[in-house]
Amino acid sequence: MVPAALVLNAGSSSLKFGVFVRGEDGAPQRLYQGLAEGLGGAPHLCIRDRAGTVLADERPDAQASYGHEAALLQIAEWLSTHRGEHRLAAVGHRVVHGGMAYAAPVRIDDAVLEELERLVPLAPLHQPHNLEPIRIVRRRFPNLPQVACFDTAFHRGQPEIAQLFALPAEVSRRGVRRYGFHGLSYAYIASVLGAASPALAEGRVVAAHLGNGASLCALDRGRSIATTMGFSALDGLPMGTRCGSLDAGAVFYLLREMGLTPDQAERMLYTRSGLLGVSGLSNDMRILRAHAATHPGARTAIDLFVYRIGRELGSLVAALGGIDGIVFTGGIGEHDAATRAEVLRGAAWAGFRLDEAANAAGGSRITRGEGPQAFVIPTDEEAMIARGMHAVLDEARQPAQ
Amino acid sequence: MVPAALVLNAGSSSLKFGVFVRGEDGAPQRLYQGLAEGLGGAPHLCIRDRAGTVLADERPDAQASYGHEAALLQIAEWLSTHRGEHRLAAVGHRVVHGGMAYAAPVRIDDAVLEELERLVPLAPLHQPHNLEPIRIVRRRFPNLPQVACFDTAFHRGQPEIAQLFALPAEVSRRGVRRYGFHGLSYAYIASVLGAASPALAEGRVVAAHLGNGASLCALDRGRSIATTMGFSALDGLPMGTRCGSLDAGAVFYLLREMGLTPDQAERMLYTRSGLLGVSGLSNDMRILRAHAATHPGARTAIDLFVYRIGRELGSLVAALGGIDGIVFTGGIGEHDAATRAEVLRGAAWAGFRLDEAANAAGGSRITRGEGPQAFVIPTDEEAMIARGMHAVLDEARQPAQ
Repeated sequence: MVPAALVLNAGSSSLKFGVFVRGEDGAPQRLYQGLAEGLGGAPHLCIRDRAGTVLADERPDAQASYGHEAALLQIAEWLSTHRGEHRLAAVGHRVVHGGMAYAAPVRIDDAVLEELERLVPLAPLHQPHNLEPIRIVRRRFPNLPQVACFDTAFHRGQPEIAQLFALPAEVSRRGVRRYGFHGLSYAYIASVLGAASPALAEGRVVAAHLGNGASLCALDRGRSIATTMGFSALDGLPMGTRCGSLDAGAVFYLLREMGLTPDQAERMLYTRSGLLGVSGLSNDMRILRAHAATHPGARTAIDLFVYRIGRELGSLVAALGGIDGIVFTGGIGEHDAATRAEVLRGAAWAGFRLDEAANAAGGSRITRGEGPQAFVIPTDEEAMIARGMHAVLDEARQPAQ
Repeated sequence: MVPAALVLNAGSSSLKFGVFVRGEDGAPQRLYQGLAEGLGGAPHLCIRDRAGTVLADERPDAQASYGHEAALLQIAEWLSTHRGEHRLAAVGHRVVHGGMAYAAPVRIDDAVLEELERLVPLAPLHQPHNLEPIRIVRRRFPNLPQVACFDTAFHRGQPEIAQLFALPAEVSRRGVRRYGFHGLSYAYIASVLGAASPALAEGRVVAAHLGNGASLCALDRGRSIATTMGFSALDGLPMGTRCGSLDAGAVFYLLREMGLTPDQAERMLYTRSGLLGVSGLSNDMRILRAHAATHPGARTAIDLFVYRIGRELGSLVAALGGIDGIVFTGGIGEHDAATRAEVLRGAAWAGFRLDEAANAAGGSRITRGEGPQAFVIPTDEEAMIARGMHAVLDEARQPAQ
């Protein structure tokens, strides 16, 4: 039996997953990918093979009671009947917050789980959903080793000064720091940069993860030295429904002058701001692009998104002391040629020269000339989790040999 | 009798002032400058001539009852006995917030004062102190014309996209926007840029107002197109006691996990953060510099200040589409050669080449070579208020002629 690993990425009402085995070179190879969505409401489970062919497409009846646990059990059941020569040997989890301590993936035990629960206040809207499947697996499959891979870990090697807010030292020591997120995506990009351009793997690169969540990361020879997200998943670029950078004074205004509770204000900043709030139309860039010519709010939202990317790009060029390249990834970064073109035209000051035809074709290199280069590289956070899981489990096996 | 103008800059326990007449070219000339500090505590009034010679140095007895009104009356009394051929003809005020409406100085009447009071929630810690002397003068000297000059006005010509947060449109319409501050300082710098370098007056310049409050402003041919401060005086660079840019999510953490009320959290971010909070030593750059070699907190605070200036400089270079020069002003900008040197060394990527000797000597030009230039230019917000006041009162007189 060949060991296979299940990779889970859990949200509030969804469970994305992938099933990986090891290729002959030791690297993870995807067997299946799937999504359970509408959990607790109108659940829908879809499983595909690595080519995208649908293998299962089910809408379970027991709607309200069909949550993360039911979905996980159904996925496990499906795997056991479709496993062929594979056996489920480990589970890897995307966990948004690893705090100050975790700079690498970690095997989950009681102490680690307790530590991760203590980090819930640092990511109250995301961390609890990430931890729930860990508990379910421990209860239902107590012998399966589990590994947590963190969105924050890749940034922990940044210079101290890049991680610090100008807060009282005792508040920083409590953990109010710039953690940064999308680290699994950036780690993946850093790992494949050399294949796109050997010079960039050794150079100064800004990776732009532009999806419904969005951030930029400054990579110096593949290592994160700065990023636009800060303490929470709110900071930095405007996102689909999140505000991005916001003056702290504006939060007090929301509380005092608009009479919102902290929970209400936080929910507004997470779910009703960003592209959706500015446009009054949608959080989806595809819809905004379709209406940009006729809907002023859509145009403003797009312009603000591109403008803020440009400003933050400049800030990261300063952190890097110059720039050799930019990599676009994430849903918008990979698929929206117009956003890429607008960002690169705005970055002409840094020497970028857009290759219109290559950009329209989706890359991979979308600049011309001798200046800094731009690439489109699809990200693969699940593959990165599988890699991290393999590394942790291999290491655990070493002493036994 | 030659008309003279009193310029007031009121803080919570202080009143800075200047007395100006018009030179032969119509430009304001300073006659006197003064400071009443320790108001409501241990008051101290000092008045100097334009050369800095002390003309009055008094420590009034009636300590607790000696507030802004007593200070103003004493200044008026002193002026009336030292006026020579001058008569007090107008009062100009620094007012931190002019909201969305005021893009220029304005003569104060009932409607304007009411409007400025409505802006108190936008700058709760500053605006009330600015308005108090306006009311005192109206009560005590009802016939004196008064003019308000705003720290926000200079930025109102920025592109809309630079002034917008990614908040729901109805929240932006309520006035939660990036206003920017230090506008009187930047307007002054813009007005004298041509004297330092004709090329810069027509070019792309970042003005760095670095004092106990600190911000950067991108000047495109002398007009503000972007700045680091946002809605309140908290945002952007770390300052003496203010935090600068802070993830909104961190505010919710202060409220929920540290149990602070909004007022307590706001006070912490305004008065116990920044250089003071990070260093645990002082908000005064001179003290931090003196201890930088031996006090780790002092070194960290300085490094963070310089690092964040570098990052925000990059962001403004992006807004400008390149950079031709930088101007240092404000207490730190004018007097701390070490901060200037560290900022310019960090900005080598943009082509700046520090002239060590010129920088040590205090300028005015402190770079060498053909790349972008850096200058030290002392600011004069009071002169700018005097100019704004003259312009408003001249215009008011036009129809009567």
